[in-house]
Amino acid sequence: MRDAVSDEAWLQALLDAEAALAAVQADEGLIPQAHATAIAQLCHAEQFDISDLANAAAGMSDHDADPAGSGEPGAGTGAAGKPAADAGPPGNPVLPLVRALRARLTEEVAASVHFGATSQDILDTAGMLVAHRALGALLADLDSAAEAAARLAREHRATPMTGRTLLQLAEPVTFGMTAAGWLVALDEAAAWLREVRRARLAVQLGGPVGRLIGYQGKYAQKLGLATPLLSWHTNRLRVAELAAALGGAAGVVGKVARDITLLAQSEVAEVSEAAPGASSAMAHKRNPIAAIMAVSCAMQAPGLVATLLAAMIQEHGRAAGAWHAEFRAQRELLTSTGSAAAWLRASLDGLRVHDDAMAANLALLATSDVQTAHTATALVDRALLAHETREGQ
Amino acid sequence: MRDAVSDEAWLQALLDAEAALAAVQADEGLIPQAHATAIAQLCHAEQFDISDLANAAAGMSDHDADPAGSGEPGAGTGAAGKPAADAGPPGNPVLPLVRALRARLTEEVAASVHFGATSQDILDTAGMLVAHRALGALLADLDSAAEAAARLAREHRATPMTGRTLLQLAEPVTFGMTAAGWLVALDEAAAWLREVRRARLAVQLGGPVGRLIGYQGKYAQKLGLATPLLSWHTNRLRVAELAAALGGAAGVVGKVARDITLLAQSEVAEVSEAAPGASSAMAHKRNPIAAIMAVSCAMQAPGLVATLLAAMIQEHGRAAGAWHAEFRAQRELLTSTGSAAAWLRASLDGLRVHDDAMAANLALLATSDVQTAHTATALVDRALLAHETREGQ
Amino acid sequence: MRDAVSDEAWLQALLDAEAALAAVQADEGLIPQAHATAIAQLCHAEQFDISDLANAAAGMSDHDADPAGSGEPGAGTGAAGKPAADAGPPGNPVLPLVRALRARLTEEVAASVHFGATSQDILDTAGMLVAHRALGALLADLDSAAEAAARLAREHRATPMTGRTLLQLAEPVTFGMTAAGWLVALDEAAAWLREVRRARLAVQLGGPVGRLIGYQGKYAQKLGLATPLLSWHTNRLRVAELAAALGGAAGVVGKVARDITLLAQSEVAEVSEAAPGASSAMAHKRNPIAAIMAVSCAMQAPGLVATLLAAMIQEHGRAAGAWHAEFRAQRELLTSTGSAAAWLRASLDGLRVHDDAMAANLALLATSDVQTAHTATALVDRALLAHETREGQ
Amino acid sequence: MRDAVSDEAWLQALLDAEAALAAVQADEGLIPQAHATAIAQLCHAEQFDISDLANAAAGMSDHDADPAGSGEPGAGTGAAGKPAADAGPPGNPVLPLVRALRARLTEEVAASVHFGATSQDILDTAGMLVAHRALGALLADLDSAAEAAARLAREHRATPMTGRTLLQLAEPVTFGMTAAGWLVALDEAAAWLREVRRARLAVQLGGPVGRLIGYQGKYAQKLGLATPLLSWHTNRLRVAELAAALGGAAGVVGKVARDITLLAQSEVAEVSEAAPGASSAMAHKRNPIAAIMAVSCAMQAPGLVATLLAAMIQEHGRAAGAWHAEFRAQRELLTSTGSAAAWLRASLDGLRVHDDAMAANLALLATSDVQTAHTATALVDRALLAHETREGQ
Repeated sequence: MRDAVSDEAWLQALLDAEAALAAVQADEGLIPQAHATAIAQLCHAEQFDISDLANAAAGMSDHDADPAGSGEPGAGTGAAGKPAADAGPPGNPVLPLVRALRARLTEEVAASVHFGATSQDILDTAGMLVAHRALGALLADLDSAAEAAARLAREHRATPMTGRTLLQLAEPVTFGMTAAGWLVALDEAAAWLREVRRARLAVQLGGPVGRLIGYQGKYAQKLGLATPLLSWHTNRLRVAELAAALGGAAGVVGKVARDITLLAQSEVAEVSEAAPGASSAMAHKRNPIAAIMAVSCAMQAPGLVATLLAAMIQEHGRAAGAWHAEFRAQRELLTSTGSAAAWLRASLDGLRVHDDAMAANLALLATSDVQTAHTATALVDRALLAHETREGQ
Repeated sequence: MRDAVSDEAWLQALLDAEAALAAVQADEGLIPQAHATAIAQLCHAEQFDISDLANAAAGMSDHDADPAGSGEPGAGTGAAGKPAADAGPPGNPVLPLVRALRARLTEEVAASVHFGATSQDILDTAGMLVAHRALGALLADLDSAAEAAARLAREHRATPMTGRTLLQLAEPVTFGMTAAGWLVALDEAAAWLREVRRARLAVQLGGPVGRLIGYQGKYAQKLGLATPLLSWHTNRLRVAELAAALGGAAGVVGKVARDITLLAQSEVAEVSEAAPGASSAMAHKRNPIAAIMAVSCAMQAPGLVATLLAAMIQEHGRAAGAWHAEFRAQRELLTSTGSAAAWLRASLDGLRVHDDAMAANLALLATSDVQTAHTATALVDRALLAHETREGQ
Repeated sequence: MRDAVSDEAWLQALLDAEAALAAVQADEGLIPQAHATAIAQLCHAEQFDISDLANAAAGMSDHDADPAGSGEPGAGTGAAGKPAADAGPPGNPVLPLVRALRARLTEEVAASVHFGATSQDILDTAGMLVAHRALGALLADLDSAAEAAARLAREHRATPMTGRTLLQLAEPVTFGMTAAGWLVALDEAAAWLREVRRARLAVQLGGPVGRLIGYQGKYAQKLGLATPLLSWHTNRLRVAELAAALGGAAGVVGKVARDITLLAQSEVAEVSEAAPGASSAMAHKRNPIAAIMAVSCAMQAPGLVATLLAAMIQEHGRAAGAWHAEFRAQRELLTSTGSAAAWLRASLDGLRVHDDAMAANLALLATSDVQTAHTATALVDRALLAHETREGQ
Repeated sequence: MRDAVSDEAWLQALLDAEAALAAVQADEGLIPQAHATAIAQLCHAEQFDISDLANAAAGMSDHDADPAGSGEPGAGTGAAGKPAADAGPPGNPVLPLVRALRARLTEEVAASVHFGATSQDILDTAGMLVAHRALGALLADLDSAAEAAARLAREHRATPMTGRTLLQLAEPVTFGMTAAGWLVALDEAAAWLREVRRARLAVQLGGPVGRLIGYQGKYAQKLGLATPLLSWHTNRLRVAELAAALGGAAGVVGKVARDITLLAQSEVAEVSEAAPGASSAMAHKRNPIAAIMAVSCAMQAPGLVATLLAAMIQEHGRAAGAWHAEFRAQRELLTSTGSAAAWLRASLDGLRVHDDAMAANLALLATSDVQTAHTATALVDRALLAHETREGQ
């Protein structure tokens, strides 16, 4: 996940946004096709030195060094991890990038770079590209975690265990039913993220004040992103929807991981991780590290979602602060949720189920409930069927 | 909105949940049809005294009076605005309600009340009913606000004004284009809420540990809610999705209202509200009260969304705290977002547009941009077309 | 706590603010002493009809009924639980209150009511009075909870139990040491709140644009609040400090209550509440209701603190939205934290300690650690000594 | 600020914590003095390769590469920017560091490294050291910003301008009075942070389950941190207090910066930054970049504070997730608030005040208020006196 939101990933996304712009404008006959080709050949991150771009972007001889960026989120950004303004130094990574591109091209071709666009167009489009790619990795982990939950549900569909409510023993269930509950939640969270990724991650192509829309449909198609109705320079619902779906996924991951840490308690001991953490000082401990880390990552999401929602109140055609406030929060949110999913997958893969401990704890209940197994397995089957159907689509 | 989430509204929703449960169970042959009819006849909020139920629910002779509820969210709830537990006093509004229902029925019929259900089933179902109804009112206000924005876009599609970025004059746009931007954002926010309302507000019918699912499809149909795959006692993604869509709507409302307060500044004076607030001390003031209130309400949403997302990490089959933490936050969020939408509608209805001030401010730009009007009106038409198409659906 | 932040409490605080203003102005010779006396005699909440004031304040014939307030936070406020503006309807509770006061006085005396003040002066002062009084109740509960923790620490200073890290058995401690940890945290949280209450809850007396400061020291003295250096109409650090100390207290309460719910787990069974919640469906359950409710209330604080911090960014001399956004969040935060403290006190009072279960769980550790008791009891004594010293102050 | 919270800074703080531990233990006679000296000589960050340590800490051959850390916050941490557990791989930076230290020492001396401590002791102590140092830089910027505000207040104590409430012209004030309001807020925010830095940033020295306290006073003295009463492994009030004071400072900075962006609006034009941002596309623009960036950074604080408050609910003697959730949020919060302060300083330094525009806007008010200048300058003097007194302390 970190690679997917790294400075390098941002730089490549910015370059992809510029290259696609030129390509579409060439198709439209606005610039020569040869120019677009030359630009495209240049738009590879490895051809640029990120720290040079960052320094150029920061370029803050008259400002304190502190606010000068540290290369986030793309090349050369301000302390808030974003360009300081819609243009000009300090802190806008698009301008130095455009300058660097132009410097390596003939004067003629150079004039076709970044034609008609405003920096926010390129930055928002690149941000969506970064999110689109990062969600790919994240969804792979969520899906693997769901797969592992499905496996546990299948294998233990009839393994008796006690249900627990309010942290007290309640009534019998099966471990398969517990895992099926995890599976359904993970599948739903993935479905939400998938829908946002498909329908709401859109290009931005408004020009300085939102009037430039013309060929945005083709631009979107070229980049594999959605087409907005109007430019969304200060209508940040798309950003909020991405944040919300990430927050939802983090919550689901946190719920499953929390259950694992509780089931792995020494006094409960119904599951253990395949690779528990050792303790130098306490050799007997078997810490469910991966689940703990998943909880930890998941807990970082809600505050970041709140930041992104609060930043929706943006002034006029480009916000004086709130837009710039989005980028670090979005990067952190992608990272946290992505890491949470990866840790949960690690925890569920090879999770060891101790059915003897389950039986012993269940015995404390002293109830006889002959119908449990039948009902529980039917629920497991229902969840698995839905899971498999979803997969087949 | 307050009516829609009031104690009375909650009580009626709880009664509706119980009545529908009996009706479905009668259809299934689990209880006699006559019992269901008798129960249904009793399930009207005006037949109960809310404060009696609240006191019975609180029933905390051994506890401090403070934590005892104050009638939120339904009859008789704890200080957190929720039942204290899955059963029994203190603080569970379902148990005293069930007791009150049974007390007014013959012993035979009484046995058919709340048959097989757990308190969380009734509470979660009622919570979804309350949300479903509250969203009806909220969407009406959002739609009216969108209608007003559409009207402004139509009427002023070619009224020249200056675009502004970073709170500085930028390039010419039209006021219609500005209003069209508001329109698109409001329409998108309403579409999201509408989809959550249709697809994600679901009944809960799991029994004590989630095994009771059988006739939940019929239950859902009877109540006009969606059917979950499994019970969602501790899979709170639905709650998160509702919260997120509300947070998104609040953000959009806040954005539009913020623009109005900025355009209404004394030095800008491009719009004014039809009913501005007077000031006792400063007679010259014309405060854009409704827009200010809309901003104020919208600003309360992000923190509440964070509370609901953080509460997703729920233990086992019923959470020891996190579930109870949802109810006040959800009520506050419905209230804040609903009020924000109502205030924005009030602000946009009859908003006065001062095209002379717009022209004067635009003149400061000293640019001549002959293409503006043409492009801007095309964008207005695009937004209006989409709006009308959406309406026609 | 609900009483302390109720509409009645707000109305009385508003009246106290007006009465004290008149009293100080009489002392200063700005109005006749007899006027101040007449005003003071009138300023009792029971002499006013809250709903009349609320309706007058709302007075929104031209607006939708929805945004009209429901009596929060004082008499007659807008949907955001706050006056809509610095003056005039809709939604300002001060103006109708002043009108109601004046209507019951001779014309001469009436002119001395609310002399020179702006509505925000009265509202902010009343808000601080409400908080000051509510903190009294809250601190009483926090102190009682600390007392109960001290008692447990004293009684069980040498009762062996296992320490737990990462939800795994770790090394031996004593239960007294665990309770001493709770004690120290509760004492620290109370000390923070006490300091904010003493030093930062201040009167507001700036007049329309902050120039009226003259006799604010005497005003503060009369009301038992602190004196600010300048008016703090848009310097909301005091509000943030109150929020932060409440958030800190909620976190501490939540930590202690979470421990109790974990120790009360069926499989651990080391403590149980004196009045556990029963379950209608599951007779064997002994739910630690009070601790669960405390966790639930505590979980509501962080999001509300975030709302209040985000609202600090206020425009010029009176904010267009952010100020109004404070009141509901502050009320909710006082209520949640106050309820959390009350529930924790209820949980700790008479908490039953099962030393046999502690011994049994400790035996699982299979370590012999002869030094534990000695070290642990020394730590208990240190915490108790500090607690008693603090009390003696 | 980024330097103050960088991986290098963290590594040095971890080494400082280990060196001080050895030094104190030598003073106590627990280890030979020569060992402490040898250890101290080794404890310099430049002697270690951060990426080696990170890899060793991650050491996750059996886990997905994704959750493996990227060098945050110290050498070698997990995806959540924190060690995965209290000991052992994966993801604990203390263990590999201890191993690296021991590898370079004789076997005898090696045994004296990290003697009796648990990883959380070193990490929490290092975290507090990092915060202590970062606050030094942050306070320098806050103080410089206050100094700049004081200068503006002094120079413009009698410069007439209009007060503004609800974004409308209100009554006359002076620009000095406005700047004095900024000054007071900045001074108060700095005072809060200074007090937290002095009294609440404490060492951690509890050993595996909090029993090791003995020489923590000397440990604290050696590191320039405060001494806690007991270990605070799961009493996170100190972390919350640091977060809250940062959130308060961010709010104050945001308020001042927001005012600057509003006063710099094209239509208001009462101030401009010394180094405004240019726009490539719109040459006429003079964007108040530094203030915009300050707002942007400040807006990131509330959500992070909420994360840290929510993480206070930690289980037993070491939390299974919530502790690990603190580190990234704390680092982000220090960075955001620090950057906000630096940007505000940059904005206020050399802020240009356009008294002609102030006069022109004031003329719109059409009020004559002869007393303004006298009152306003008295308030300025009051604020300056308090500022200078504070400085002299």
